[in-house]
Amino acid sequence: MESSASSIESLAARIDSLESERAIRRLSHDYCLGFDKRDADRFLSIWWNDAIWDIGPPFGRFEGIAGIRRALYEVLWPAWARTQHLSGNHCIDFQSADRARCVSDVDCVGSLVGEADCQLVGATYTDQLERRDSAWRILERTVAIHYFNPVPGMTLSPPDG
Amino acid sequence: MESSASSIESLAARIDSLESERAIRRLSHDYCLGFDKRDADRFLSIWWNDAIWDIGPPFGRFEGIAGIRRALYEVLWPAWARTQHLSGNHCIDFQSADRARCVSDVDCVGSLVGEADCQLVGATYTDQLERRDSAWRILERTVAIHYFNPVPGMTLSPPDG
Amino acid sequence: MESSASSIESLAARIDSLESERAIRRLSHDYCLGFDKRDADRFLSIWWNDAIWDIGPPFGRFEGIAGIRRALYEVLWPAWARTQHLSGNHCIDFQSADRARCVSDVDCVGSLVGEADCQLVGATYTDQLERRDSAWRILERTVAIHYFNPVPGMTLSPPDG
Repeated sequence: MESSASSIESLAARIDSLESERAIRRLSHDYCLGFDKRDADRFLSIWWNDAIWDIGPPFGRFEGIAGIRRALYEVLWPAWARTQHLSGNHCIDFQSADRARCVSDVDCVGSLVGEADCQLVGATYTDQLERRDSAWRILERTVAIHYFNPVPGMTLSPPDG
Repeated sequence: MESSASSIESLAARIDSLESERAIRRLSHDYCLGFDKRDADRFLSIWWNDAIWDIGPPFGRFEGIAGIRRALYEVLWPAWARTQHLSGNHCIDFQSADRARCVSDVDCVGSLVGEADCQLVGATYTDQLERRDSAWRILERTVAIHYFNPVPGMTLSPPDG
Repeated sequence: MESSASSIESLAARIDSLESERAIRRLSHDYCLGFDKRDADRFLSIWWNDAIWDIGPPFGRFEGIAGIRRALYEVLWPAWARTQHLSGNHCIDFQSADRARCVSDVDCVGSLVGEADCQLVGATYTDQLERRDSAWRILERTVAIHYFNPVPGMTLSPPDG
């Protein structure tokens, strides 16, 4: 029979893996909420200082937390009047206890500044994640946009108050 | 070295936190499935008796399980011919072992009674949750609807059988 | 006071349940990613050899891994030019430690071959799952499609590179 000490160690490792997945999904959720609610602190807290955010066309590739911050304030937020991201399908694979890869999908509904018709965007995020000093953050997020198209005649607005 | 007893206690607390998050997400999922499939038992099981469901315009604010039940039968279900809610982005923060706040997003596709064109609705739920006698339920859900608009010319129907 | 050994056993059972839910959600996510990215290995790895995939109209009911593979290559992938599935709302109930039922919802955006206007599809998956030799897979997935309709004038395309 296994000794208690080694059992406890093995249980702790299993819990650590579940907690890591929770932390990794949370980064994805904070990305969506931070971006959509224009909460820069929340959005920027998910990246390592040396992170890369590679959105590709039409937005570009941004390096380092300063580059990501600039992209947010100078490229992305000025382009969108309004967005709603819903992320899901998180497939997380650990390369070690402190490194993981996560592939997930996102549906986004939004309005570009100056355009009446809203857009539907579907994309896949491929993330490289790292745990440093007990905290998980994104080291690299690559965005593959599968479609980015207007819905003819549909304009976004909240219900009348 | 830590004693086994204290280690076990600390592992149990970590498992409890993971189980609590699971229970909290499940409440959100039962909200969607209960509402969309018109399963009142499922939908009503997620709220404490003294809960508040604050949807805001155009639907209103409902207090207590009796008020929520009335809203369901007299306001919401009569208004919608069909809905599909997909919830995600659950950001859960514990205020204590038995109290938590959860912010999540939802995409809803639905048809209002008497209207041919379907609606797309995007919203954020802010939930206050409490555990009482080992069970997690919602104490207050506030809904912020970001857009609620028709898709011109799109009518919802299942495929021919 | 409970002995350490029995405590450890009870913690292990709770961790096992959390890990099982993680594995079950992962099957749903691999379904989406495997289908959408046309990664047959990923898609086929989620089913037991004796599994049933019952989509109903307009696609049909497919039995066994050979039937599911044929459905994929001869029915589904030829019908769709492009799809994006986002699954969520996973409600998992265990019938035993090795058997579970999962109800979840999916939003799908896609284009049928030969059609310019894209489709929005909303459906519910009801899954019967089994663990065999430590691995969870789907034994039966029944798809209830609630709507499957074109968005007039909306064509899917990626942004210009």
